[in-house]
Amino acid sequence: MKQVPIGVSARHIHLSVEHIEQLFGKGYELQVMKELSQPGQFAAAETVAVIGPKGKFDKVRILGPARGKTQLEVSRTDAFTLGLNPPVRESGHIEGTPGCTLEGPAGKIELTQGVIVAARHIHFHTEDAAKWGIADKQMLTVKVEGERSLVFEQVVARVSDQYALDMHIDTDEANAAGVKTGDTAIILA
Amino acid sequence: MKQVPIGVSARHIHLSVEHIEQLFGKGYELQVMKELSQPGQFAAAETVAVIGPKGKFDKVRILGPARGKTQLEVSRTDAFTLGLNPPVRESGHIEGTPGCTLEGPAGKIELTQGVIVAARHIHFHTEDAAKWGIADKQMLTVKVEGERSLVFEQVVARVSDQYALDMHIDTDEANAAGVKTGDTAIILA
Repeated sequence: MKQVPIGVSARHIHLSVEHIEQLFGKGYELQVMKELSQPGQFAAAETVAVIGPKGKFDKVRILGPARGKTQLEVSRTDAFTLGLNPPVRESGHIEGTPGCTLEGPAGKIELTQGVIVAARHIHFHTEDAAKWGIADKQMLTVKVEGERSLVFEQVVARVSDQYALDMHIDTDEANAAGVKTGDTAIILA
Repeated sequence: MKQVPIGVSARHIHLSVEHIEQLFGKGYELQVMKELSQPGQFAAAETVAVIGPKGKFDKVRILGPARGKTQLEVSRTDAFTLGLNPPVRESGHIEGTPGCTLEGPAGKIELTQGVIVAARHIHFHTEDAAKWGIADKQMLTVKVEGERSLVFEQVVARVSDQYALDMHIDTDEANAAGVKTGDTAIILA
């Protein structure tokens, strides 16, 4: 049985170096609060305010390290709160997505794009993927057991020797399935 | 193919006659704002404030007519906002569930129970159920197509000659599946 640990992603933001400096000051570096399941990735001590046309979140966690492009990942529920209509996208694919306003201690940024609802996906280390015969970008069907048991279709496989086995879903998906971080999913096909 | 229209339930409350009077005044009757898909059910013009240990919603829609017992239906996301941990329950089964505070123009109520996350379900008119060989209380497996396509298991069939065909899911479930009211689900088994 192909069992995968579940990691629930709450709303969070990845920032470019340029945007970190605009929000926190010249030469600023993010502080590591907590290591994440993916090697090298961390939850930063810092948060930013995110403002949309209809609502705001005062403290959105920054995930580090800095990336090439700033990207805000929200659930559909969060998107309604902000008053935005972001598409479901894989990480890094932000062309044509809506923007929002970011506010940090040192400044404010009007993003013109970068807000997405993250497509559910599973990170596989190359060895896990090889063992199970799973290819990068393959679409998987994954079951979650329990009183709200669900079968997720359209789950993207992402394979790299930089990854650790983990299924990432957002809070809407976790709540709909009645699961939390650390629960287990089963790849059906 | 057993196709069923989807109705997405946002957070809402059903009130007892006694509680309507405590919140709105002696002899008060709810005003019909909009008829719902189930015959005789309506969204009332009135809303109440709902207050939990950690947060509040200023305007929660009342659904009428009055019921025997007051029942607040929220998504898991809403429950986190309020700071409550309600169980997933079928409508009417509120024993042992948490309470909350309700506030209306004429008064305030400390509910000792009544907050649930509604179990997903399909209302069938007796004739639809007979045609498809579905029994009241049967657990169904139901697919929703789209870019976030999902298979919902543990979907309760509710059969009555008072019901119209409609699948009720909450906003977390709708967002996880990327669907909205009026979209279509397919009963697989």
